Amino acid sequence: MNAHTHQTAPTQYVEANGIRFAFRRFGKPGGVPLVFNMHFIGTMDHWDPAITDGFAKDREVILFNNAGIASSSGEVPTTIEGMAVNAAAFIKALGLSQVDVLGFSLGGLVAQTLALDEPQLVRKLILVGTGPRSGEGMASLTPEAQQVFGATYAEPDHLWLKVFFTDSQASQATGHAFLKRLRSRTEHRDPEVSDSVAPAQIEALSKWGAPREKPYDYLQNITQPTLVINGSSDVIIYTVNSYILQQHIPNAQLILYPDANHGSQYQYPELFVQHVSGFLAQ
Amino acid sequence: MNAHTHQTAPTQYVEANGIRFAFRRFGKPGGVPLVFNMHFIGTMDHWDPAITDGFAKDREVILFNNAGIASSSGEVPTTIEGMAVNAAAFIKALGLSQVDVLGFSLGGLVAQTLALDEPQLVRKLILVGTGPRSGEGMASLTPEAQQVFGATYAEPDHLWLKVFFTDSQASQATGHAFLKRLRSRTEHRDPEVSDSVAPAQIEALSKWGAPREKPYDYLQNITQPTLVINGSSDVIIYTVNSYILQQHIPNAQLILYPDANHGSQYQYPELFVQHVSGFLAQ
Repeated sequence: MNAHTHQTAPTQYVEANGIRFAFRRFGKPGGVPLVFNMHFIGTMDHWDPAITDGFAKDREVILFNNAGIASSSGEVPTTIEGMAVNAAAFIKALGLSQVDVLGFSLGGLVAQTLALDEPQLVRKLILVGTGPRSGEGMASLTPEAQQVFGATYAEPDHLWLKVFFTDSQASQATGHAFLKRLRSRTEHRDPEVSDSVAPAQIEALSKWGAPREKPYDYLQNITQPTLVINGSSDVIIYTVNSYILQQHIPNAQLILYPDANHGSQYQYPELFVQHVSGFLAQ
Repeated sequence: MNAHTHQTAPTQYVEANGIRFAFRRFGKPGGVPLVFNMHFIGTMDHWDPAITDGFAKDREVILFNNAGIASSSGEVPTTIEGMAVNAAAFIKALGLSQVDVLGFSLGGLVAQTLALDEPQLVRKLILVGTGPRSGEGMASLTPEAQQVFGATYAEPDHLWLKVFFTDSQASQATGHAFLKRLRSRTEHRDPEVSDSVAPAQIEALSKWGAPREKPYDYLQNITQPTLVINGSSDVIIYTVNSYILQQHIPNAQLILYPDANHGSQYQYPELFVQHVSGFLAQ
């Protein structure tokens, strides 16, 4: 398993909760594995190899498609809570008793819920480009998100240049380097998600983001050491939501990167791996 | 010079702007030195050796008393701008053409102004536990600051347990370890500041913090790469001010540490040195 990388790790399958979960597992075994939770309409192939292979030097990395996504069977739940139940079932089906959990965007909502539901299973939590229940601008997709997800692009994956990077020349240049890395796995890629995925995920996002009383109180119950990371200028899940997460989770550190949008970890992959690895090793 | 540490570095003097500045200089020479700007009523002896010696392994560290403070001659200006002019004069009097500047609290206001006034002199900027002009709660000392600075303590330096650390048991334990480190320089210490220092510094703080139109626009003119660091729960200069600094300085990274008050860098000295050293080496 050690010899595999992001590009070569075979897609494997495990059954749990009536779902056949597709996953890939690689890196240095023996410690606490790091489980990645993906964003809106993303598959395992949307993770940046600069990050996954970066972590794999020191620890085992587990990528998976949650229920209804790409090569996994089942239906996409219309609640974050349903997605977290499936994520927990997947992790337990691998026979793991403790993992570190990284969640990006929608995956960060799943990761928070998983940490709350399974305090024994989740050792440490990394929340990237995400936000709290009823967060600022989270009752629906932000106007900026509606615009960039609704537009058409010369190449389909140029969507991510607008979602993850700012309009600055420097940020866009790192975006093109990111796309090149995304395309670097040439064999046994995941299929794209089906058309039923986006509506179900948007319904789940909207329920999560809906206004409610004392919306941030639940964050007090996240007992895991938590690292919150985002870009300075996230227009998909506004940056202030990362600040709110840090202010309400009892043991949370915040890092915000300059001139960066929703995908700051793809703009600064080495720095990101260094910061997260330091946090996981503490 | 290399052989000296925080505890052994002799106090030296240099004349500039009609002021005899006291300073200490130690660490690894040859690179860009790191100049420390001190907080309200602090002297060179209020820096934590865990931090100064931590940095001194890789770079030259310069501590100094600005005008009118402890072993330096002159008067404390009643404006931050006046303090920055003196800081620039001090740095130039050492014959330095480029430095990195770290400012803590009041020293962070001086550091911002120095970076704006002397863009060639200041290479990188580290702003710790500080805030912008007209920042939240900065028109006067915060109610919490008035309370802790107005109280009396069993030992005078127990003041800093309340200023720098939260009330949690874990934070207070690191506070006592910090005080032990502060006391570890036994010879050739600075005198405490005179009674005229606090009123002048409070006047300068109040002018800086006074409400004004578009108060954060000036931050766009800080061109240096900047690292902003604070605790999650700063009651002396509210944490949100660090977030505001990051959001308005064009090239700024933010790090907030958990369960930490105004002196987060003294609560997590190793992590702080690691984060800042990484930033300075980028």
